Amino acid sequence: MVHKIIIAFVIFTPLVLSTVINKVEKCNLPFSIKKEIESYKGFVTKIINSVNNQFKHSTYNHLDDFINAYGNRIAGSKNLENAIDYILRKSDLYNLENVHGEEVQVPRWVRGKESATLLYPLYKDLPMLGLGSSVGTPLEGIRAKAVVVSSFDELHKLSKILKGKIVVYNEKYSHYKETVVYRSDGASIASQYGAVATLIGSITPLSLATPHTGWQQYAENITKIPTACITKEDANLLHGMYKRGKPIYIEIKMEARTLTSAISRNIIAEIMGNKLPDKVVVVSGHIDSWDVGEGAIDDGVGAFISWNALAILKALGLTARRTIRTILWTAEEEGYIGAFAYAKAHQNETKNLDFVMESDTGIFTPLSFTYGGLPEVGCILQEILNLFTETNITNIQLSIDGGPDISKWISDGVPGAALFGNLEQYFWYHHSAADTMVAVQPDALDEVTALWAAVSFIIADLSFDMPKHLTSYEFKENDI
Amino acid sequence: MVHKIIIAFVIFTPLVLSTVINKVEKCNLPFSIKKEIESYKGFVTKIINSVNNQFKHSTYNHLDDFINAYGNRIAGSKNLENAIDYILRKSDLYNLENVHGEEVQVPRWVRGKESATLLYPLYKDLPMLGLGSSVGTPLEGIRAKAVVVSSFDELHKLSKILKGKIVVYNEKYSHYKETVVYRSDGASIASQYGAVATLIGSITPLSLATPHTGWQQYAENITKIPTACITKEDANLLHGMYKRGKPIYIEIKMEARTLTSAISRNIIAEIMGNKLPDKVVVVSGHIDSWDVGEGAIDDGVGAFISWNALAILKALGLTARRTIRTILWTAEEEGYIGAFAYAKAHQNETKNLDFVMESDTGIFTPLSFTYGGLPEVGCILQEILNLFTETNITNIQLSIDGGPDISKWISDGVPGAALFGNLEQYFWYHHSAADTMVAVQPDALDEVTALWAAVSFIIADLSFDMPKHLTSYEFKENDI
Repeated sequence: MVHKIIIAFVIFTPLVLSTVINKVEKCNLPFSIKKEIESYKGFVTKIINSVNNQFKHSTYNHLDDFINAYGNRIAGSKNLENAIDYILRKSDLYNLENVHGEEVQVPRWVRGKESATLLYPLYKDLPMLGLGSSVGTPLEGIRAKAVVVSSFDELHKLSKILKGKIVVYNEKYSHYKETVVYRSDGASIASQYGAVATLIGSITPLSLATPHTGWQQYAENITKIPTACITKEDANLLHGMYKRGKPIYIEIKMEARTLTSAISRNIIAEIMGNKLPDKVVVVSGHIDSWDVGEGAIDDGVGAFISWNALAILKALGLTARRTIRTILWTAEEEGYIGAFAYAKAHQNETKNLDFVMESDTGIFTPLSFTYGGLPEVGCILQEILNLFTETNITNIQLSIDGGPDISKWISDGVPGAALFGNLEQYFWYHHSAADTMVAVQPDALDEVTALWAAVSFIIADLSFDMPKHLTSYEFKENDI
Repeated sequence: MVHKIIIAFVIFTPLVLSTVINKVEKCNLPFSIKKEIESYKGFVTKIINSVNNQFKHSTYNHLDDFINAYGNRIAGSKNLENAIDYILRKSDLYNLENVHGEEVQVPRWVRGKESATLLYPLYKDLPMLGLGSSVGTPLEGIRAKAVVVSSFDELHKLSKILKGKIVVYNEKYSHYKETVVYRSDGASIASQYGAVATLIGSITPLSLATPHTGWQQYAENITKIPTACITKEDANLLHGMYKRGKPIYIEIKMEARTLTSAISRNIIAEIMGNKLPDKVVVVSGHIDSWDVGEGAIDDGVGAFISWNALAILKALGLTARRTIRTILWTAEEEGYIGAFAYAKAHQNETKNLDFVMESDTGIFTPLSFTYGGLPEVGCILQEILNLFTETNITNIQLSIDGGPDISKWISDGVPGAALFGNLEQYFWYHHSAADTMVAVQPDALDEVTALWAAVSFIIADLSFDMPKHLTSYEFKENDI
């Protein structure tokens, strides 16, 4: 997942629901609805049994084969398109319906070779990852004296000495949303004072000497300077030297550049509804990843529980009243490009969207469901999740928040929910070489696959539509 | 800490105490002893208050200054000797007594440049760390086809196809002592079948794409082949390829070599006893480290709680009946070289050793005390630890085990105890670039410094000697 908080959604949520609900406590669902949902208990048991027997570890094995064949998949790369072709072929093979790709124009940023080297007071390689959209350095690199700060406040106070310097941020990690501004805005803020490059301590609650990449954006009217993340260990080391008054010299070489945009595709596959085929429940994750590691956690697991949920329902011959559609978004990492393009291209069909689901924060426990919509939506979801009490799936809570790729729809009045994993652990791996199959637990994938398949099926099969919410918010071009 | 289990100790412990004691439950200490120990309650409070006020974060700050000045410190390096000089100077500055270094001959293994590259089926740098005592490759490197196994059992079954191959171990981590045999013996076992090099998935319960180094030993009469650890992520990736029948080609280049041995020093500093100065309580950690990261966890914290415990006692003007001696061992990582040399050189003084203490597994909570000696020793320790109940130091347990550097003495009948941190977390950082000050918590260091200072002082000050145990074991040359 990328870091960007969509302003649309931030503006929107308070209008609809004013407090965070950790557990839906005040529900007055009609008895008939509760009874109807309860009637799916046997179905849930069947799905769980199927996933634990006939389809045991199938999500893991599908993902493992896929990762072994394609590895990581950055937007604009040939490898991503090959990976998309593979999923389309597999979708046909598993008899999913309406299988197709929908073209999207995506940015094409390429890393190239890159290095950062501490030259003085000691010679040391600084493992690093250039940030998405960063410009490169001249071929001979940038050599400059460094200034190390722990916050933007400290930076502003040192504004007079930053001209010609490399700024190193050794910020403290508090919470991803709070801390990621150093990665996203650090270059622009240092550039306005004349800094020539920025190195940022990686955005993670736990470092084992691992650099993490991610998207960044340049503000308007500033000089674009090269920017990269280094390890927290090295940021701390440099800070220690700086605080002791040692002059610090660093060399940065980056070939990073942005090429002309490319065409990628969102992947669509369905199980058509048997009564109301035009009405749709979406289950989704994103197929693209960063260009390091394997993109297994971000968002291989989210994409594959969505895709395999449909494959399993199909194999079991289960069709719901409404259509269940899996969408695997492209170019999420560059700012929800695929999801927003899809929402825009299909905005006339928004009225037919019954519910949108997304998984893009891993599957580390404890898991929670976070939903956007009317309180009644929360009550219905809670009732459905109650059907899972006999499994190992626990700690499922409802709270008001949105998943990044579905946020546009929620802001347009379509109710939806995101599966949230343990964020602390998720960010250990996020956007780094550590995002690999080693971090994926096959049993955990089975559990969430069963959850994903059953919840999407039940919502698609209910006798009533999920209640929509009103919103005063309208889609604006510059939200993208 | 190195991995080696000293056979002497393994043989010894069952002779003395036959079961593991997790909590000393059956104690019948004389009332007078309990009363005497209880009388130190005020002293413990004083130490804790001093550490939390006058000396707040002093262990962290001392260590941070030291690490910033010297970084990592491998045996045989000039840097280690400079670091030792620094501690000796500081010890004089803090008015510790009998400050001196004692010379020890230590191995001198140097890493040099090194790399491992996956050439086929895709081109990928494999981050790696050569293992201590490994030979290097020819200048042009070794290029060979790889065989990937998950266990020695699998390796033995493939013995006929290993000639000329690079063996990759993708072993599962169970417990450090069990799993580390792949690192220590993996090269020798593969070499006997004609393998030309070995790459081993790093020995850690949690990987974030970090390679871990460590000592290894060649068996007698085998061809010494280059050996290194790669990340668990890459070991898993290669294993996935191998299981799918893909031919795998890897190139390894290592300049590693063993030079003529060097002279290093154990560091000794004391607070002389005011009644029984010849009797000694030892507090210790090791001053050397691996040549990656900063050696902050292994064993900066152990060395500095030992050293600073004395510095604080001295600053407070506290002297015990017996002498309290801090020893900072050299060349622990190559097999307790400093500790064993010291024990041998001072074997005539063994009778004067009252108690030996060591910290070499970090200070991550929960902490435990593990002791070697008669049950009475455990009872006395438990009684002393009971004085700490009002602090945050909890989960201190007694069990029978030994710390590596003090094991020789315990096997010679001297009672001792090691402070054991949470091993799971310790091995996240162990022998890697992640072993830095980022992983060290200043408050936690204060807690264990107070514990270390107070426990060593009380034992040194008691009216009675710690009871010694008998042993049938005698020191043998080849234990080293």
